[in-house]
Formats: sequence, C-alpha cells, structure tokens
Amino acid sequence: MVPTLEDVRKAAERIEGIVYRTPLIRNDALDAATGARVLVKAENLQRGGAFKMRGATNAIAALTPEVRARGVIAFSSGNHAIAVSTAARIFGISATIVMPSDAPRIKLETTRANGAEVITYDRIHESREEIGARLSAERGAHLIKPFDDPLVIGGQGTAGLEIADEIAPDAVFVPASGGGLAAGVALALPDARIFAVEPEGHDDIAQSLATGAIQRNPPGIRSICDGLLTEKMGELPFAIGRRRFERALSVSDRAVRRAMAFAFKHLKLVLEPSGAASLAALMEGDQDVRGMTVAVIASGGNVDAATFADALSA
Amino acid sequence: MVPTLEDVRKAAERIEGIVYRTPLIRNDALDAATGARVLVKAENLQRGGAFKMRGATNAIAALTPEVRARGVIAFSSGNHAIAVSTAARIFGISATIVMPSDAPRIKLETTRANGAEVITYDRIHESREEIGARLSAERGAHLIKPFDDPLVIGGQGTAGLEIADEIAPDAVFVPASGGGLAAGVALALPDARIFAVEPEGHDDIAQSLATGAIQRNPPGIRSICDGLLTEKMGELPFAIGRRRFERALSVSDRAVRRAMAFAFKHLKLVLEPSGAASLAALMEGDQDVRGMTVAVIASGGNVDAATFADALSA
Repeated sequence: MVPTLEDVRKAAERIEGIVYRTPLIRNDALDAATGARVLVKAENLQRGGAFKMRGATNAIAALTPEVRARGVIAFSSGNHAIAVSTAARIFGISATIVMPSDAPRIKLETTRANGAEVITYDRIHESREEIGARLSAERGAHLIKPFDDPLVIGGQGTAGLEIADEIAPDAVFVPASGGGLAAGVALALPDARIFAVEPEGHDDIAQSLATGAIQRNPPGIRSICDGLLTEKMGELPFAIGRRRFERALSVSDRAVRRAMAFAFKHLKLVLEPSGAASLAALMEGDQDVRGMTVAVIASGGNVDAATFADALSA
Repeated sequence: MVPTLEDVRKAAERIEGIVYRTPLIRNDALDAATGARVLVKAENLQRGGAFKMRGATNAIAALTPEVRARGVIAFSSGNHAIAVSTAARIFGISATIVMPSDAPRIKLETTRANGAEVITYDRIHESREEIGARLSAERGAHLIKPFDDPLVIGGQGTAGLEIADEIAPDAVFVPASGGGLAAGVALALPDARIFAVEPEGHDDIAQSLATGAIQRNPPGIRSICDGLLTEKMGELPFAIGRRRFERALSVSDRAVRRAMAFAFKHLKLVLEPSGAASLAALMEGDQDVRGMTVAVIASGGNVDAATFADALSA
C-alpha cells in the first residue's frame, strides 16, 4: 500500500521521544551563493548520524510485541544498518545486519558497537535482498527493508513534517537512491517542488521518471556517495515520486566534495558524501532557485576522517 | 556597572531576529562516556560561526543611531572580529578591526569578507588595547570591547537563557578567557554550577579565583586554543565569576584535539579548538558529573581545514 500524509503523521507520533527533532540551519554565505533563502535540515545531527533512524524506529515501534521480541534483520550499505541497530538497542531486541564488505569502516564499526550481528557480503556479486530474505526465514526475525516499506517511508517523511512546522518551502532538495526519504518528504510537503538528487552516472531515478517505469543501474558503478548506490529505486517510492518529483538532478563526486568543504567552512557541519549530495545539487545551480525558500536535507554525517579530510583539501 | 540577569533579558529582546537561536544537541556516545545527560549548545552554528555574534549585536543595537552611524572598532583574536564585522554589515555601518597577525587565516578572511578594514598587530610585542583606543579616538568610531562591557556580557548570556528555556542544567561547562561568555551564562543560569575552561598553562582564571584578584598570564604562551589567549580576564567578568564560577578547569592541546575528533565522529559538528575546550574538560573527567544534567557550550567552529584534519588524525 502506498503510504499517505496520514502515515507520516502517525509515524511522527510513534517515534516521538526516540528520534530527535533536528534543527533547520541558516547561513549567510549559502543565501548569498544561491540567491535563495536556504534552510538546511541537519539530519546529520539525528540519532545515529542520519535520517534513517526515523524510518527504522517507526518500523520497529509498529511491530506487535510478540513479533518484535524475535528481533529484526536489515540489509544496508550503512546508515540504515546503524539506524536499525540503534533502534533495536533502544527497544532491547536483537538485530542482524547484512552489509556490503566495502561499506565505510565507521558504519560497520558503529553498527557492531550497537550490539548487532553484522554479516558482510560482496556488493558486486551477491544480492543483499536474497541474503536478507533467507536469514529472515531462517531466524524468524522481522526484515526491515531500507525503503520499500510504507512504515519506513512514513518515518522518513517526519523530517518533512518538521520542516513544515517551521517554514513553507517552495522547493526541497533531497538525496535519493531507494527513494524512501524523498518519497516521505514529498508526502509531508505536498505543496513543495521536490528535487531528488542522485550520483552522476547512477541516474536511475531520472531515467525512471523519464520512461515511466523503474529503471535499473548497471552494476559496479562507483561514486563517493556510498549511501546512494542502490541498484534501483523502490516500487512505493516510485509510485509517489512519479507524481511528485519535479525532477531528478545528478551530482559529480567533485561537486559533492565541494559541498562537504562548504558545509565544513560555512555551516560547521560534518556531512558524509551522500548527505552533502543535496547541497551539491543546489550549489551547482542546475536548477534556478533565486528568490525561493529552499529546504535542503543534509541527510547524514557518518564519514571516515580520511574521506572527510580529502574533501577539505580538494 | 556589573550586568545582571535583567541585562541578559534585555539583550535577548534586542538581538532577536538577527542572532540565531542555536540547538541543544544530544548524543548517546557522549552520555555513555560521561555518565551524565549531556546537552551541547552548538554555538558553532551561530551566525558568524561563534557565540560572539550575541554580544557584538547587542552592543551595536544599543548604540544611538547617531553614534552607530560613525561606525565601530574592535580588537580581537578572531571570533569577536567576525562577529562585529558581521553585525556591522547587517546594520550597514563601517567596522575597523584590529587583529593579531597570527590569527587563523579563516578568521582574517571572514572578517575582510564582511567588508571590515582589518589592521594587524604583533600579539607578543604590541598592545591591542592601546591600538584600539588610539584608532577609536582618531576615527570617532565606537569601540566594542570583546568582554569587559556590560552589553557584551549581557549579549553572550543569551546563550544561557536559551539553555534555560529548554532544560535546567546542574552544571555548565564554558570556555573562558576574557570571561564574557562564562559570566553572561552564569547570570542567565543562576542555579547552575559554572565551570570555566581555559588552556593548560594559561590558567589565569584559576589563579584569579584562588587569589581573589585578577591575575595575568605571562606573554608568549602558546595553545591550540587561539581564541582563549587573552592576557587576563575582564573586571566585569571577574566580578561575576568570583562569586559564581564553581571552578576553573584547564585542558591540554591533546585533550582539545581529542574532543574535536569526538565532535567530528559522534556529534557531526565542526568545532574550533577554543570551541571544543569545554567538551574536552567534560570528557577528561576531572569533574565528576555522573547522574547530572550538563550543558556544554561548544562556543565556535571557525577552524582552518589543516588544523581540523590534524586533530582528526591525532
């Protein structure tokens, strides 16, 4: 079932007190650079360092106590892993997380530090969906999908509800891969133009919108945005996005590094590459936003020191 | 005249709409490391990247239009310079800023980018107070002192008022050098124990509290905390601090770098060395805070990329 604004509102009630309300941050340099009134939704300051905590918490909170007690399973390139393991720790249940072996070290470490069992796989040659489904069947644990789940989309949308509480943006820039955050935010902000941002060369969302059917990225594409490399977007996000996404924009690694450096220098925020993709798209200027009120979702901050330092020196 | 809580309240009204309300940030790892409920007041997200914007804006807003129109002068190691130049830009008046020649490049650049005239001096051999007073007399511009001014202390105290709006902390850790922020926060939070944090080997506040009279640091002391190297604290801050500061704590460069790395990894905040001093003192554990509600003022985030990267690799 395709979720609605009502599902986002229910999620907000369910996750209150567990998930943090994150600030909207203003910056003179950013306004000057874009000609817009820009507000950065700092989801890097979210519990677990990324917006994923919203959907994971909503999905676990909605389980019956009996089902929940059997634990949860998730497959994730990183931030969903951290989120599910963090939420599982808070609810006092076990978590099994399937992660690509080349996930950033900080994401593997943080997930393990939350007490989850981490099972790694080869992102190029193995299917995480199959591994996750098999483990779920074997262990009787509930599988929390990273984006193609109405509860997860509803949870991610609460970031948009918080934006709506403070401003009425004309446009919202959102990093997108599976599309859960962008779809949820689209539900929460029905009057805003939604720009989904994806890595250059990994533009399945643009192609899916153009063709009217979900398109798949070829395997093996590399990008600095480790959190935005899903093979294809989810069916529920597509059902929402095909009506609501104004456009998909793509960003180069170089533009993302520049945005990370800008966030360091001006916003004083630590953004991971995927988390800075939306800011990169805004600052590249392919979409004219002059005179508008623009919300930029800076979706996460889980980045290794070496990757971060490299971006600053670029 | 020693300012009071009433001056802080007046400042809050005066600066509203110009100065940002900054978030209080929670973090599981920080609570676990300290055994306390810790809230980080993220003044690095303040306009101009540091709390100094509060005092500078209050001081300029309180001038009569005639005096204000003649412009302002300030002497500062950095963040007060950025703050006065930013506030002057907003009020549409000229600013002359006297800065040490070895101030961090980002602080010199940002001040100039605000349209201020920057005059550099040798921190070891020249007196910035004398230079500032001379320029003020020559140009007829109003001198905004960095801390020994009731309006500046009242303005800085608004950070404490914002904390009081959300929580009632048992203890507050505040970076201190001139003492304006720590004194203002002490006024705003009369029931909290105030810990003033200063660089190791530059512990004039500890000595001033111990002897009951303002003590002076010997010249030439180096610390990574470029914003906390004032020769001696102000008379007004001392008048407040001698009654209200529970204790002065000192932190090593190494502890400050560790705190910057912790803020990067867990809080996702960019903190400059002086801005991380309070967090460093809390995490070093010289003061037992277990079971308490603790506010930590992360006072600024204006740091060069090289200094930041260096702290991350330490």
